[in-house]
Amino acid sequence: MCRWIAYRGETTALEHYVTEPSHSLIAQSIQALESTASINGDGFGLGWYGQHAEPGLYREIRPAWSDENLRYLCRHLQSHLFFAHVRAATGTAITRANCHPFACGQWLFMHNGFLGNWNRWRRRVEALIPDALYPSRIGTTDSEAIFLAMMGAGIEQPLAAAATVLAALSDFVNQSDPGDRFRLTAALANGRDLYAFRYAVNDRANTLYYSESERGIVVVSEPIDRDKNWVAVPENHVLIACAGERARIVPLFERHREAAE
Amino acid sequence: MCRWIAYRGETTALEHYVTEPSHSLIAQSIQALESTASINGDGFGLGWYGQHAEPGLYREIRPAWSDENLRYLCRHLQSHLFFAHVRAATGTAITRANCHPFACGQWLFMHNGFLGNWNRWRRRVEALIPDALYPSRIGTTDSEAIFLAMMGAGIEQPLAAAATVLAALSDFVNQSDPGDRFRLTAALANGRDLYAFRYAVNDRANTLYYSESERGIVVVSEPIDRDKNWVAVPENHVLIACAGERARIVPLFERHREAAE
Amino acid sequence: MCRWIAYRGETTALEHYVTEPSHSLIAQSIQALESTASINGDGFGLGWYGQHAEPGLYREIRPAWSDENLRYLCRHLQSHLFFAHVRAATGTAITRANCHPFACGQWLFMHNGFLGNWNRWRRRVEALIPDALYPSRIGTTDSEAIFLAMMGAGIEQPLAAAATVLAALSDFVNQSDPGDRFRLTAALANGRDLYAFRYAVNDRANTLYYSESERGIVVVSEPIDRDKNWVAVPENHVLIACAGERARIVPLFERHREAAE
Amino acid sequence: MCRWIAYRGETTALEHYVTEPSHSLIAQSIQALESTASINGDGFGLGWYGQHAEPGLYREIRPAWSDENLRYLCRHLQSHLFFAHVRAATGTAITRANCHPFACGQWLFMHNGFLGNWNRWRRRVEALIPDALYPSRIGTTDSEAIFLAMMGAGIEQPLAAAATVLAALSDFVNQSDPGDRFRLTAALANGRDLYAFRYAVNDRANTLYYSESERGIVVVSEPIDRDKNWVAVPENHVLIACAGERARIVPLFERHREAAE
Repeated sequence: MCRWIAYRGETTALEHYVTEPSHSLIAQSIQALESTASINGDGFGLGWYGQHAEPGLYREIRPAWSDENLRYLCRHLQSHLFFAHVRAATGTAITRANCHPFACGQWLFMHNGFLGNWNRWRRRVEALIPDALYPSRIGTTDSEAIFLAMMGAGIEQPLAAAATVLAALSDFVNQSDPGDRFRLTAALANGRDLYAFRYAVNDRANTLYYSESERGIVVVSEPIDRDKNWVAVPENHVLIACAGERARIVPLFERHREAAE
Repeated sequence: MCRWIAYRGETTALEHYVTEPSHSLIAQSIQALESTASINGDGFGLGWYGQHAEPGLYREIRPAWSDENLRYLCRHLQSHLFFAHVRAATGTAITRANCHPFACGQWLFMHNGFLGNWNRWRRRVEALIPDALYPSRIGTTDSEAIFLAMMGAGIEQPLAAAATVLAALSDFVNQSDPGDRFRLTAALANGRDLYAFRYAVNDRANTLYYSESERGIVVVSEPIDRDKNWVAVPENHVLIACAGERARIVPLFERHREAAE
Repeated sequence: MCRWIAYRGETTALEHYVTEPSHSLIAQSIQALESTASINGDGFGLGWYGQHAEPGLYREIRPAWSDENLRYLCRHLQSHLFFAHVRAATGTAITRANCHPFACGQWLFMHNGFLGNWNRWRRRVEALIPDALYPSRIGTTDSEAIFLAMMGAGIEQPLAAAATVLAALSDFVNQSDPGDRFRLTAALANGRDLYAFRYAVNDRANTLYYSESERGIVVVSEPIDRDKNWVAVPENHVLIACAGERARIVPLFERHREAAE
Repeated sequence: MCRWIAYRGETTALEHYVTEPSHSLIAQSIQALESTASINGDGFGLGWYGQHAEPGLYREIRPAWSDENLRYLCRHLQSHLFFAHVRAATGTAITRANCHPFACGQWLFMHNGFLGNWNRWRRRVEALIPDALYPSRIGTTDSEAIFLAMMGAGIEQPLAAAATVLAALSDFVNQSDPGDRFRLTAALANGRDLYAFRYAVNDRANTLYYSESERGIVVVSEPIDRDKNWVAVPENHVLIACAGERARIVPLFERHREAAE
């Protein structure tokens, strides 16, 4: 079911968040505590923004816990906005192309969850991807398809794009009786702003926490230490961490958002 | 552009055809002679039939020349019908799921060639795959999509299924002006019978040879030695090597086949 | 700390012992029950005897649980004597050359355990390997070094060779104060006969069980099902399963063996 | 036989030297021009210095030409001193631990060449490694052993340490009749200074070139473009590129160096 961490803030070496904490993502790869899969050993990935316009990616199919390259990179890469992800596959192949994060242009996306009965809905979800973006579908996961569908739904307005796609996916799974389960806990970024979604249909949402300080914000599937103050993101809400602003949480869907404002 | 070998005949250790010949497939992985890509180092695969109803597969993304597992397996696996393939990727990811051969039920398929402008035609080709077989699309290559389209076109009549799919693909590439190039040199088997196709549209076909003896038949992208008598399969023809029969060659398309009979 | 299984008996598909049982080795790779390491995801290996004079090997650094090649091979490979091993590394690199089993000539060896403070004793253990066998040291594990030392100590008499090497290793670890821990639970075979060792110095030995029937004998780190009758091998004993004979258990060291006879 | 590139100068993205040039190291991985092995597809590696006291490493067993991680890292990693290497193995295993560069403390080393009859001399070369450094021997190559021997011979004086070890190795190979061939073209760095050695015994040395400008110095197995002015390093000489100084070339052995000064 995967575990992940996203960071936005002062430029820092990735190791301070990915490898060093007492319950770091690497530790979670071999023993997660709040996940249905305690072992997340089906590959991993890093995505980060630097001086180049597009983000960097390092993805590998080996377990994170034994990858010496990962330790070197986390020590040497510095970034103001980065993602890290350890994977527990739910049916699709163990390939680099199926490891998170996914990159498209300046955008990064990663995901924890699943779309129940993926083989039934796969074609419909893939049909949400516009032709122009279909060449970017280099893997076969539900996660990548959802990302590319969001890209095609007007990613410049990330909340609206996400709401559009999640509504469509919710419709799909509700067409079965009983409805298929759908859980999505995802992070999205464009190099400046960071969005984290917690959503579920016909099921409980996966856990999602964040901790904010003067230095920046960390968003995680489960807390990486006991030192920081971890706040749970409510179900069906999105955490918005724009550059230069305090993070805020809003309901995922427009009508709820309007009511909340 | 890939190189491959297919064998049907007396049960034999794979090594006699895959690793031992002077210009074996392993040698071709590092220096092919009749291919546009002299190096076929983007993964490889074995597919073979044994006592189990479904074929076995061994696919790996490393170059064939340095894989010690491959040498052990070729020495120890014995089969009356097997495929081996070394890959030179033409754009899709280097993953096991994109390595040949592909298996579906009792069928094996492998391919050398390409469908020009794959990103333009990919969705149309994938649309040829029936819903029931779409879960078998675990990779992203044109080759696997063509195979599954053939499966869906009535694979029990392999020549008709192949003709149907190749006609559809030819229509696609001819919709561009000038027509996109399309080359397919492929092997297909069901555990008893072996079919090898040599076809091209808007281009010359890739080379395809076979050698038949009392012991069986070997079909290759390029000759693996100078000892045997290698016969070229004509363009736009299919080699049919049914169990218990001498091999024969017929034109790929029905109207030609009728004329030939 | 690794988990393994060894089989000698009627020729059978490996899957019946490696992948199919309720608590199969593949299941143990992701959740072992009697091991200090519950996850054995640092590579795996198969070794088997067939028609060729030397055994076959398939070793891979990915976790066993996600390797589709392994499932195909276990279904298609048939053998009268085979080993399978899942690894939890204890410090040495995750490479195929460090995965078990190890082969040398007609011999196979695999191991579960460790030689405490390996870096202190490594050179001394490597010095036990004769010059003629040193080219066979293609990895860096303690396990491979112990195997090659046994090969050099007169492997034609496997019990004597093992006793010689284990005595030397015991001397090494006892030179520190307090003595370093040393645990070895290992299997050794030559294509006909199978030997399984359970030994420890300054520590408790790892678990070792076997189950014998008309069809053959299975030796395991921990039981693979609840159907068979599993018997524990006593500490500091060796299980001898020669072709055509009932298995017997003898003390590891000569003076004990004499007393036992 | 490997190809490599080393850079010292203004901080720059690795891509300008590793992936972008017309005959870049990546191009050389698939078609080297001045090497006995035109294909260098047996793994690769990057080593670089950044803000951390110790260098970073990224090593992988796949061919460099198909590794998408490598392209991302070369775009995003910036360094004032870095190494890149593509490997053509000469007998030792294809493992990350056998890929260059090798790191030990603040030092980096990489190598192109071979020590003829390695299996005959291996133990003697390994015996040159001091006990304290033997735990750093995580692979099995001649290259790593030579590096660790140099580390043990007083690496703070790199020229003297190299001369000591190369003299010892030369003695070894000359003990056979006819003498075994020994070729070494190697780079060594400590984060500030860069040394490049070109040496051979009983054979011609591999090629080694450099190009120096205001911005820094590039040292290569073979020229990466036609734009720069490439100067060959003479056989049995060492190129010294200390921080803040113009590069200079001196004979490898002391008596020659004295004569040259």
